[in-house]
Amino acid sequence: MINLINELWYLKRDIVSDDFDRALARLAEEVPMSILEYPSGKRCWTWIIPEKWTCHAAYLETLDGQHLIDYADHPLHVVSYSLPFEGIVDRDELLQHLHVHPRLPQAIPFVFKYYDRDWGLCASQELRDSLKNDRYRVTIHTSFEPGKLKIGEIVIPGQSEEAVMLVNHLCHPAMVNDDLTGVVVGLEVARTLLERSSRGKKPYYTYRFLILPETIGSVVYLSQHEDLIHKMVAGLFLEMLGNDSPHALQGSFQPDSQIDRCLMSALQGLDPHGYTAPYRTVIANDERQFNAPGVRVPMLSLSRVEPAGSPTRPYREYHSSLDTPAVVTQERLETSRQLVLDLIDAWENNQYIVNRFKGEVFCSGYGIWIDYRINPDGHRRLFEIMERCDGAHTVADIATELSISFQSVWEVVALLKSKELVWLSRTPHPTDPHL
Amino acid sequence: MINLINELWYLKRDIVSDDFDRALARLAEEVPMSILEYPSGKRCWTWIIPEKWTCHAAYLETLDGQHLIDYADHPLHVVSYSLPFEGIVDRDELLQHLHVHPRLPQAIPFVFKYYDRDWGLCASQELRDSLKNDRYRVTIHTSFEPGKLKIGEIVIPGQSEEAVMLVNHLCHPAMVNDDLTGVVVGLEVARTLLERSSRGKKPYYTYRFLILPETIGSVVYLSQHEDLIHKMVAGLFLEMLGNDSPHALQGSFQPDSQIDRCLMSALQGLDPHGYTAPYRTVIANDERQFNAPGVRVPMLSLSRVEPAGSPTRPYREYHSSLDTPAVVTQERLETSRQLVLDLIDAWENNQYIVNRFKGEVFCSGYGIWIDYRINPDGHRRLFEIMERCDGAHTVADIATELSISFQSVWEVVALLKSKELVWLSRTPHPTDPHL
Amino acid sequence: MINLINELWYLKRDIVSDDFDRALARLAEEVPMSILEYPSGKRCWTWIIPEKWTCHAAYLETLDGQHLIDYADHPLHVVSYSLPFEGIVDRDELLQHLHVHPRLPQAIPFVFKYYDRDWGLCASQELRDSLKNDRYRVTIHTSFEPGKLKIGEIVIPGQSEEAVMLVNHLCHPAMVNDDLTGVVVGLEVARTLLERSSRGKKPYYTYRFLILPETIGSVVYLSQHEDLIHKMVAGLFLEMLGNDSPHALQGSFQPDSQIDRCLMSALQGLDPHGYTAPYRTVIANDERQFNAPGVRVPMLSLSRVEPAGSPTRPYREYHSSLDTPAVVTQERLETSRQLVLDLIDAWENNQYIVNRFKGEVFCSGYGIWIDYRINPDGHRRLFEIMERCDGAHTVADIATELSISFQSVWEVVALLKSKELVWLSRTPHPTDPHL
Repeated sequence: MINLINELWYLKRDIVSDDFDRALARLAEEVPMSILEYPSGKRCWTWIIPEKWTCHAAYLETLDGQHLIDYADHPLHVVSYSLPFEGIVDRDELLQHLHVHPRLPQAIPFVFKYYDRDWGLCASQELRDSLKNDRYRVTIHTSFEPGKLKIGEIVIPGQSEEAVMLVNHLCHPAMVNDDLTGVVVGLEVARTLLERSSRGKKPYYTYRFLILPETIGSVVYLSQHEDLIHKMVAGLFLEMLGNDSPHALQGSFQPDSQIDRCLMSALQGLDPHGYTAPYRTVIANDERQFNAPGVRVPMLSLSRVEPAGSPTRPYREYHSSLDTPAVVTQERLETSRQLVLDLIDAWENNQYIVNRFKGEVFCSGYGIWIDYRINPDGHRRLFEIMERCDGAHTVADIATELSISFQSVWEVVALLKSKELVWLSRTPHPTDPHL
Repeated sequence: MINLINELWYLKRDIVSDDFDRALARLAEEVPMSILEYPSGKRCWTWIIPEKWTCHAAYLETLDGQHLIDYADHPLHVVSYSLPFEGIVDRDELLQHLHVHPRLPQAIPFVFKYYDRDWGLCASQELRDSLKNDRYRVTIHTSFEPGKLKIGEIVIPGQSEEAVMLVNHLCHPAMVNDDLTGVVVGLEVARTLLERSSRGKKPYYTYRFLILPETIGSVVYLSQHEDLIHKMVAGLFLEMLGNDSPHALQGSFQPDSQIDRCLMSALQGLDPHGYTAPYRTVIANDERQFNAPGVRVPMLSLSRVEPAGSPTRPYREYHSSLDTPAVVTQERLETSRQLVLDLIDAWENNQYIVNRFKGEVFCSGYGIWIDYRINPDGHRRLFEIMERCDGAHTVADIATELSISFQSVWEVVALLKSKELVWLSRTPHPTDPHL
Repeated sequence: MINLINELWYLKRDIVSDDFDRALARLAEEVPMSILEYPSGKRCWTWIIPEKWTCHAAYLETLDGQHLIDYADHPLHVVSYSLPFEGIVDRDELLQHLHVHPRLPQAIPFVFKYYDRDWGLCASQELRDSLKNDRYRVTIHTSFEPGKLKIGEIVIPGQSEEAVMLVNHLCHPAMVNDDLTGVVVGLEVARTLLERSSRGKKPYYTYRFLILPETIGSVVYLSQHEDLIHKMVAGLFLEMLGNDSPHALQGSFQPDSQIDRCLMSALQGLDPHGYTAPYRTVIANDERQFNAPGVRVPMLSLSRVEPAGSPTRPYREYHSSLDTPAVVTQERLETSRQLVLDLIDAWENNQYIVNRFKGEVFCSGYGIWIDYRINPDGHRRLFEIMERCDGAHTVADIATELSISFQSVWEVVALLKSKELVWLSRTPHPTDPHL
């Protein structure tokens, strides 16, 4: 993954841009991917697809021609979707258009004005503080022209048409942790699922991986696939998976949904350092469009984010020129990739557990007895799980109710299933004779 | 309002009495009002309408003819619905029939024995303590005769036959804050709604204002309008609105009802000093009949009441001869009148918000963007409200869920409506495509 | 009850054994009882009925023939369902098969290996510690042979076929508090119900008392009466009712069931020293089979158990040779018997309360007025109960909602019923006119 990051990170991947298209085309060489294209100006629900934006050149000069800031030095020096501008401005006006990072005095910030447009440059706080002249010359050669918003889609067909959406965005120019790490982790997860499928291990759910420009990309995809929405049963957004922070799993708008119960309880068993948090309390991304009214797909979000209250949250180099390959390691990317796969495995396993038995199981007779005199906790746990196997509880329901990990429930359920004491169902089959 | 109070307060407005009728007739000169009449002895559900009661004269004398207490001095000197009595009694017997106020040594208490009858006089604790003779002469000339229980009803027809009941009682003789202030505030609210209607602004709900004797009046009205009960969707009882205490909004028996959610969250935005409390924890009045079994109209109660724990709760002069016009001010009555109107406006506005949009709204495109870098709370609030506009939440539901005021939700909803992003519905229209 | 205990306690009542049958036959002399018989080897759900087990003789000797342990001295000296064994074993091997009590150094423990079989002896810790020789001779003459598992069933027909299951086990050899006290208390309760029936006071529910070997007995009964399960609406397991601890009422797997609400709130009014606790937190017995998947009869459990956290919980002599008649008193047994009868009476009374009245009741007119000036709590309570009499709440629902005892609700309800203000229904009859 780190190689792909090194190859693509410095591209000027603005939301509709040649470099975005280049990056997407390169990713499409890795796995079978459809590139969906939608023209600028197209209305999508309440939105309009913006023009393609190109910055040909941009710099800030002293009146005697000394270049202080140059787009050629770093793509973040120009506000993404800046209007063109050329002229001499006095210092006060310049400072209103010269953006800096709120925390990092030496970094160039990432600033975008896709819809509420203006001209703008970005520089370090240190450079800004050194501007003492009365007037400066600004040159921003940008062009807006009809283009095509592009979305990469990888589909892994499942036994069911019910779809799980795995989403990441690619539109953060010359940065790495946010957002390229989510893209490469998603890609490797897709590759693994494709390999499993090619070995005949077709998943139950159909998985749709989307690589798109943030927000507008999701709106475009959803509005152009309205007939698919009712089949989307769950989703996961991926981002910031290379930095040195614990995994944060942010719940969806529907905290009682099966996917929320499943992934939340699964994380508990998979990553002792990970933590969970409610919707909108970790980081906001494309999951907003999927959770929104008229769509209502419960989509969680996985990222590596500093704990709540940290002054550098989400992470120190966020939205700045310091978000380089130095922030991430291959090892952390691989850990995150494995975590996503394990979460998917939990989700595939999350079914209603229907008892073939009645009463308590004759555990000794089936060789699954845990002696309460030797292991009282294990004994109690076994029975607490078994007594909820009634066709009305999923694995995730039981884990949530008992506040234990998905895996510890699944371990018992898998054992019961191997003894043919239960069967698993995608829909409820309540067995209470009083119903 | 204070003028009407000055004119009517000293009348002996016992529950079925000539003075009650006089007061009601005077009120009916102010706004179009029907006077409903029901005869003594009529059975109403489990109740029977009592006789008309008149006290012609009453006094306590020393055996040598010195008047110590005289009904002519104050109407509260006789227990309302006292039996007639004439005779010489020894001191002990007298004291059993001579009621005083539990807290105010100089005040005559308000005591009534409508159904559990006896003869009785009322006096100040100071006077009672001064009674040292062995025997006294008691004269109580009261009469019970067939009469008519009267109820004033003001109807403001709405677009819908669904009715909101605004109720206050008029039967507390020679007192002001309890209960005349509720009557005059209700009357002014009715006058405003009538004026609006005459200007073509017909409300959605039909408003029925009732002025009646406490408890028995509500039972009579409800039992004689059983066919209306299923159309009564909400109610508000008004009382004690002139004294110097914060507004207290007491919830109904159904705390999750729309009217409870609406008025409770609206008070939060309308009166920073007001407070809310559950059913039966502030003061008990006619809302009890409306909330009761077989009726079950969620009726809240608005009053000005000292905070829980205050030794003089509900207010110092409660149920005593000190409850005079001195307790109330015109300004406080007007503040309460405006509050009731604002609560009604909130209720009229409380509808299901149905999204015309899908996904998140293109806020910049609609000019409703709040920059999270400038106003993070406003940004968050905007999105928290928008994402609940799904045809399954009312304004009050969202306010309750987010623990914010009705008004702050309504402000966003009104904006969205002005942009044609939502429409409002009196019934749920869920738009989740997975339903 | 203590006489029956003295007569039966020392019998070797292993789960399928001649002494179990003897004890059951003796109990059947007391009240009309069916003895149900099921053969060894029969499959019952996931279980198999074990063979009849007999211990003919068993002892531990020094190699020079000195008897250290002898089954003839106490039936607990041999593990119940021990395999036969004969031979000389070295000390280490012996100790692996010689069980002691975890807390009581002078007591012989009760150990059973019904299904996970092995040979085994039991002795006091003191005796075990005194074993210093290198080798010992073990003799265990036990036999396994086809037998019949027996269950005593007392049926008290009710007006309805809906059944309440009262269950206790009889299979703890030579012990008293656990389990013979539950049996004799249950028997006396059954006797009282039978007497009432013979006097024409037929209960509403059909009561089925079961006396059986633990766990396997319940599985056998349920699996052989599957057609009855859907008629079983509630259950109560009885055990440990003679020792000196407060009554503990353990809830069922369904804490919101009517039987849970009823018995939990009834205990509060019946036994100020008793306490309640959730399912599986006091003691585990046959209620597990009834609460289990595919059966789901809400069965509570009543016992006398030391409070949570006590190091000798459930009680000091539990599962040991010290559990003798000295642990129990006739008085405590009678108190428990009365408590069970009172709980049953509450359950019989637990119905939906349907209001014949609308609005609040004219309490003075019906002579049920409680003056709020004299008894404010009583007044409030009366109205809090009355206002929930709406055909949608049972007595137990109201008690649970108000956190008061079943009896204090019932007292008001019985009064209302005597005044024909309410009627009682076994099914909901909601009277809210807005439904």
